[in-house]
Amino acid sequence: MSKPKILIQFDSDAHASVFDAVVAVDSGIDHLLQYGSIEPAQVRDLVHGAMFTRGPQDLHQTAIFIGGSNVSQGEELLRHVKKCFFGPMRVSVLLDANGANTTAAAAVIAASRHLKLSETTATVLAATGPVGQRVARLLAGLGATVKLGSRSLERAEEAVKTLQERLPTAKLAALQTANATEIAEALEGSQLVIAAGAAGIELLPAEVRATAGALQVAIDLNAVPPVGIAGIEAGDKAKERGGQICYGALGVGGTKMKIHRAALQKLFTANNFALDAEEVLQIGQELETA
Amino acid sequence: MSKPKILIQFDSDAHASVFDAVVAVDSGIDHLLQYGSIEPAQVRDLVHGAMFTRGPQDLHQTAIFIGGSNVSQGEELLRHVKKCFFGPMRVSVLLDANGANTTAAAAVIAASRHLKLSETTATVLAATGPVGQRVARLLAGLGATVKLGSRSLERAEEAVKTLQERLPTAKLAALQTANATEIAEALEGSQLVIAAGAAGIELLPAEVRATAGALQVAIDLNAVPPVGIAGIEAGDKAKERGGQICYGALGVGGTKMKIHRAALQKLFTANNFALDAEEVLQIGQELETA
Amino acid sequence: MSKPKILIQFDSDAHASVFDAVVAVDSGIDHLLQYGSIEPAQVRDLVHGAMFTRGPQDLHQTAIFIGGSNVSQGEELLRHVKKCFFGPMRVSVLLDANGANTTAAAAVIAASRHLKLSETTATVLAATGPVGQRVARLLAGLGATVKLGSRSLERAEEAVKTLQERLPTAKLAALQTANATEIAEALEGSQLVIAAGAAGIELLPAEVRATAGALQVAIDLNAVPPVGIAGIEAGDKAKERGGQICYGALGVGGTKMKIHRAALQKLFTANNFALDAEEVLQIGQELETA
Repeated sequence: MSKPKILIQFDSDAHASVFDAVVAVDSGIDHLLQYGSIEPAQVRDLVHGAMFTRGPQDLHQTAIFIGGSNVSQGEELLRHVKKCFFGPMRVSVLLDANGANTTAAAAVIAASRHLKLSETTATVLAATGPVGQRVARLLAGLGATVKLGSRSLERAEEAVKTLQERLPTAKLAALQTANATEIAEALEGSQLVIAAGAAGIELLPAEVRATAGALQVAIDLNAVPPVGIAGIEAGDKAKERGGQICYGALGVGGTKMKIHRAALQKLFTANNFALDAEEVLQIGQELETA
Repeated sequence: MSKPKILIQFDSDAHASVFDAVVAVDSGIDHLLQYGSIEPAQVRDLVHGAMFTRGPQDLHQTAIFIGGSNVSQGEELLRHVKKCFFGPMRVSVLLDANGANTTAAAAVIAASRHLKLSETTATVLAATGPVGQRVARLLAGLGATVKLGSRSLERAEEAVKTLQERLPTAKLAALQTANATEIAEALEGSQLVIAAGAAGIELLPAEVRATAGALQVAIDLNAVPPVGIAGIEAGDKAKERGGQICYGALGVGGTKMKIHRAALQKLFTANNFALDAEEVLQIGQELETA
Repeated sequence: MSKPKILIQFDSDAHASVFDAVVAVDSGIDHLLQYGSIEPAQVRDLVHGAMFTRGPQDLHQTAIFIGGSNVSQGEELLRHVKKCFFGPMRVSVLLDANGANTTAAAAVIAASRHLKLSETTATVLAATGPVGQRVARLLAGLGATVKLGSRSLERAEEAVKTLQERLPTAKLAALQTANATEIAEALEGSQLVIAAGAAGIELLPAEVRATAGALQVAIDLNAVPPVGIAGIEAGDKAKERGGQICYGALGVGGTKMKIHRAALQKLFTANNFALDAEEVLQIGQELETA
């Protein structure tokens, strides 16, 4: 009989997320160990406790989830977790701080239902944030030409530089999208726009979207009014609006939740997964074709 | 198949109560998420995590328990929890900080076994504390005439005022009960006395109880010696002493525990319960007649 | 039907140990309540919650585990836990802060496979640390003559004094073991050496071990290189090296883990166990002969 499934929740916020905990339960784990206020220096002893308590044949029944509202802190926790591993002594780990990986994957998968992404030009608005960077990274990885838009050209260029180092052959461009004219220019020739901004910021005005001639698919990842793309509603799911196929945050949310649960379940199938953006996307793609 | 039952324990103390956790387990929940050191400002994100992770048909399988030793902090947490809800997007919640609601309900139910409360005059000693206020409120709600006693007349009057606003037709009186004479006066004409004081304070001396001619039922909610009502033992359960039916804290405790468990179980039968004093009393009444 | 098994984990570290949590799950408990950052003053309310929630017939289904990396803090927590109990109102408790009790028991059991301990002279290196003190205490309790070695003679003498008070008839000696010559002297006439030092300190050089003529069994409890006894490898398990039977930390680890799980399981067979070094050793002995 196999050992119970134990998920260890590392969260950089004061209290470990209820959201992530409920999804963990619904993915079928047996025991959840919640750790809030986790700092990188505290990771080692806790991870060793995961590595050294079960035999090699049972290590896949222990796994780590890294959450928290701060994605860069989550990334740092992931680095510290990975540093503890050596040889076969390791457990699987999923990073989904602020839901960034599952959200980005769900957005890209929504787009892939309507566009051949390897032949698509995409504009990502608020592309320098944690979700935006992941959306751009995943699109570029699939062969899309990606324009990264930001209110600050400097930050957009920095994000492009980081991404280009990761994906040397990616077709990327940095654009300032601080006003309607600049946003309209950023959309020229793009079949896809994904808005990945913070809550309550309108990134794409209605009149700009209306005049974006090449645009076929518009995806907004902000659920809190005002939405990021004017005219889209949070619940839109492949809803046609003015000749464009539209998705709102809740319309993408169902796919996101399925990916989140499936990624957690995958953790318990081997002890050597480290699931970040690309791996989470692949899980989502497998769900689409299943 | 229905989702596992998840109870989220919010506690304003540094560490979430073991007592409440064990009762939760014994009520049949599947997973307990414990949160200590909870502050009102932290409630929102956690409650959203409860609201936005399961579909409408499964939301009743997630619920919130608010505990902690400080009842007014618990009440504030409850207000913040309720503010998160909108329309059908909500989960059920039970407030039982310091066991105040289940204790008050159990005391009133014990009294109701021997007295017709709508025709009873009751004196509540230490009526300005969290348990005392709830005892007075529940008795008044059932139609009893209630005298609220406190060492401070001012605080008694304040408690009466607050309660009168909630129950405009209630028959209430504020009394100072700082010495034996005043306590004797407070008991005049009362068939019921309930002592709801803090641990280790004797509220009702033996000689006063002996001369309280109308008194039929005496209930003491303090389990730590010295007991609140002299002559009562903590384990008394409908024990006749000097012509009065007596209950001690442990004698009321069995009913309290049953109500606590039943209230937790009720949470998981719908997603829109907000169980405070009156609702908890009703659960206790249903147990009595079941 | 019996109540679910609840284990309450008290840990003086900021975050309750993952190691102890996983072992708890694997020992078959149903619910784990984790409490990190526990201070002695906070113990009472939490222990009362364990004592006052279940009836006498079910109290053995609730138990307490005391862990944390600091053994003396763990011992203080144990004292505070025990003070809460009265009469039959108690729950079982296991102290294994820093794994000291299970490690010491496993080391002594490993030695007992090869030596008749009541006729053995043993040298304990780093005998003033938490594990070393327990090793010396268990060996002395079994009738061995025990030499307690420390870099500081004063600390060694203090440890001997403390142990002699506990075991008045024990045959004990305090020795300074600050250099190779002193260590060689400490090993003279000893059939057994157990090194219980902190990670990364070599306590017994290879040339000293080679010349220890009486030495039959050498056990090193440090798994982190450099090992405490030169020439021993962490995985050694009754491995013959230069005529001596050698154990490394991992070689002892299997027994330690079995004892840890068995001790946790024993907690749930009655409500009045307080398992410290001697009781944990006895559990290990029962496993050996089972």
